[in-house]
Amino acid sequence: MEQILRHIDEQLETSLERLFALLRIPSISAQPAHEGDCRKAAEWARDTLIEMGFAARLSETSGLPGVVATHHAAGPNAPHVLFYGHYDVQPADPLELWHSDPFDPQLVDGPRGRQIVARGAVDDKGQVVSFFEAVRAHLAVNGTLPVRLTILLEGEEECGSPSLAELLSQERETLAADFVLVADTNMWNFETPAITTSLRGLAAVEVTVKGPNRDLHSGLFGGIALNPINELTRVLGAIRDEKGNILIPGFYDGVVPVSNSLLESWAQLGFDPSQFLGEVGLKHPAGEAAQSALAQLWARPTAEINGIFGGYQGDGTKTVIPAEATAKLTFRLVPGQDPGKIVQNFERFITENLHPDARAEFKHFGAAPGFAMSLDAPFMRAAREALSAEFGKPAALIGCGASIPVVEAFKTHLGLDTLLAGFGLDDDRIHSPNEKFDLACFHRGTRAHARLLAAFGA
Amino acid sequence: MEQILRHIDEQLETSLERLFALLRIPSISAQPAHEGDCRKAAEWARDTLIEMGFAARLSETSGLPGVVATHHAAGPNAPHVLFYGHYDVQPADPLELWHSDPFDPQLVDGPRGRQIVARGAVDDKGQVVSFFEAVRAHLAVNGTLPVRLTILLEGEEECGSPSLAELLSQERETLAADFVLVADTNMWNFETPAITTSLRGLAAVEVTVKGPNRDLHSGLFGGIALNPINELTRVLGAIRDEKGNILIPGFYDGVVPVSNSLLESWAQLGFDPSQFLGEVGLKHPAGEAAQSALAQLWARPTAEINGIFGGYQGDGTKTVIPAEATAKLTFRLVPGQDPGKIVQNFERFITENLHPDARAEFKHFGAAPGFAMSLDAPFMRAAREALSAEFGKPAALIGCGASIPVVEAFKTHLGLDTLLAGFGLDDDRIHSPNEKFDLACFHRGTRAHARLLAAFGA
Repeated sequence: MEQILRHIDEQLETSLERLFALLRIPSISAQPAHEGDCRKAAEWARDTLIEMGFAARLSETSGLPGVVATHHAAGPNAPHVLFYGHYDVQPADPLELWHSDPFDPQLVDGPRGRQIVARGAVDDKGQVVSFFEAVRAHLAVNGTLPVRLTILLEGEEECGSPSLAELLSQERETLAADFVLVADTNMWNFETPAITTSLRGLAAVEVTVKGPNRDLHSGLFGGIALNPINELTRVLGAIRDEKGNILIPGFYDGVVPVSNSLLESWAQLGFDPSQFLGEVGLKHPAGEAAQSALAQLWARPTAEINGIFGGYQGDGTKTVIPAEATAKLTFRLVPGQDPGKIVQNFERFITENLHPDARAEFKHFGAAPGFAMSLDAPFMRAAREALSAEFGKPAALIGCGASIPVVEAFKTHLGLDTLLAGFGLDDDRIHSPNEKFDLACFHRGTRAHARLLAAFGA
Repeated sequence: MEQILRHIDEQLETSLERLFALLRIPSISAQPAHEGDCRKAAEWARDTLIEMGFAARLSETSGLPGVVATHHAAGPNAPHVLFYGHYDVQPADPLELWHSDPFDPQLVDGPRGRQIVARGAVDDKGQVVSFFEAVRAHLAVNGTLPVRLTILLEGEEECGSPSLAELLSQERETLAADFVLVADTNMWNFETPAITTSLRGLAAVEVTVKGPNRDLHSGLFGGIALNPINELTRVLGAIRDEKGNILIPGFYDGVVPVSNSLLESWAQLGFDPSQFLGEVGLKHPAGEAAQSALAQLWARPTAEINGIFGGYQGDGTKTVIPAEATAKLTFRLVPGQDPGKIVQNFERFITENLHPDARAEFKHFGAAPGFAMSLDAPFMRAAREALSAEFGKPAALIGCGASIPVVEAFKTHLGLDTLLAGFGLDDDRIHSPNEKFDLACFHRGTRAHARLLAAFGA
């Protein structure tokens, strides 16, 4: 291992050159004008992997191609790791806010040493090349890899992954690994690596409360006629109490509590909710009062109204009782909650609490359960050891309050669990002008990936 | 009296001719192109009143002129009645839905005899001319009137009365009557005249609940960050319970209960709430469950949300926690409620119930108290007797759930109470194509006005 790490240290400049070559390709998947550039980036990855000794090819889809590569010299008994990354990037606008050409990567001085500045510096080209360079070091020193390795790069991650299901389905056999390693997330902070061990799911629903068959004058009908906005606010206002508890019957059914060891580990992260909330103009955690701030953020389900509309919305006042009013909600879900039942229970709660002259109509916009990775899975133990060895301190075991669609896709289509370990930082400005990747993060990320590969194979 | 009534009966065709002359003038106050027509209608009224023996003139304002006329031959000790009507009409569009030219009045057969069909047939030219003809009959038979009579016609009633305050102010001395008679309302039904004895007031307010300083991603902030829409629905949802009671502390302070005699009189009206609500697609009175349907409609205060908006309102779903959400409310008020305190109590209720990270901002759009006419006022007793004598049954004493701005204006600017007694029917299609006035209503209205004048002077 020491030899491999030394190789990485010595080759850092060459590694950077390779990363810069990829960063120079403006592979913006959302913009049809860059379709050719996307293909160039895919071909760059394919050719690089072939040069490294992989069997690599493009996997055509109805959209942009995937890159699929295998290096199975470790033999059929070695663990099989599937690495996932993406070669496409976000659009670079607004261009005038960039200090340099987004596709002419620069090394500039920053508070923690030099930074790689370019669109895709960290999301995800920097993280992908960091992994490639770790693989390259293993191959340079040992001539082989400690695991069977399959690499999948997607070309449409930044535009909603329209062809991902198709790609996973057509490559099902090639991708039949033991687990997936995704390098597209952040460290806890500059000193502390992180593994994301849980994601929240989502159920999205729209409710329209209908009352009179037309808008009514509130003087001539007010009082006696049902008002759909009053009714909508009354029933929606009753889904959460003032302590943040969600009152829909059955809402918490099956919720798997966060383990004590994870809660203890979170308590040591030194998370400061007033600082976190202060950045968006808030002060007080607004979720369930009985839960810690991090639990509210990562591990507790929510019932959020994302939009509401009905009646008069112009200037001034209008004495109208509208015929209907609508709200859009999403429920963030945690492991154990059944998204279908959540929606069902919500609809029953609304319907049963409405005035007899009101009726509710619902629309559904998809549902996905929450995930929690087992801390006892062999790849998880290996990852914690490897990261701890590289950074001199344990990896933070963090949650993510959002869904990560690719994790859902691997679970749904291939039945695979995902290890989320990446080396970005919260201040990397992904999707924004002057996206950057600290050189130290790229370097330590490469070293950590080399250790991860060794640990997975041990 | 019999002589006067006989005169009215005999002169009906001539009365109609005079009404038709006024109906032929397209005095649409909302359309600047008809300004000249509005002046023509005002001059027609002025000249007609002069011809009848009044001192009459136009009263110029910054908008369209009023018509002011006095006939004070009854002497300084006679009661002084101020009659109010308006000479302007609504626009006639959509023209293609009229069966005849809206400004070429027709007599057509209807289910209850002949109908006068024209824009303004009942609102308000028909009602105004009906009163004029009653005055004319008194003068023809007796050479004088039983009361001191002042007539005020407004020319901007159909476009929001922008100059009414100015008109009342500049004519303050001339208009210093004992009470106002307004003929711009309906009978209870074809057989039953009506006096509107109460009006609800109004307080209008807008509340915006603000939370984070920008829109947030509901995955990355959901749970821990305050959601202004959830908060708005929670606090607004708490202003009414499921039985329709309004829960804002102090909301019912000072509410004057409807007298038992009025409640008994309402009970005899045979009001059918399911028929009334059925016409707008509803079935069940939705106000305070402990109150009768007519009380909900006329005599109980309301808290209506007239509009609400916040967050994402497009198709599908968006996982956003918006920075703010807004609702517009109006409170219909009944006698005894102080509009200023209602708004204050509402704002305190919202503010005190909000999460500490939410703040509310308010806008006000005017406030006016509810009115109840005393049933014991001399003009009210006289009116009930006169209507009862003409129709052979007591007048229905009804309420109006809305405000009538002119009633407020007379009270505010001149300190005068108003008697609302008109002879329209609910099916007269006012403001709509083919507006009509049953000839029988015009005729009986004229007779009733003649009796009213006599009763006021008795």
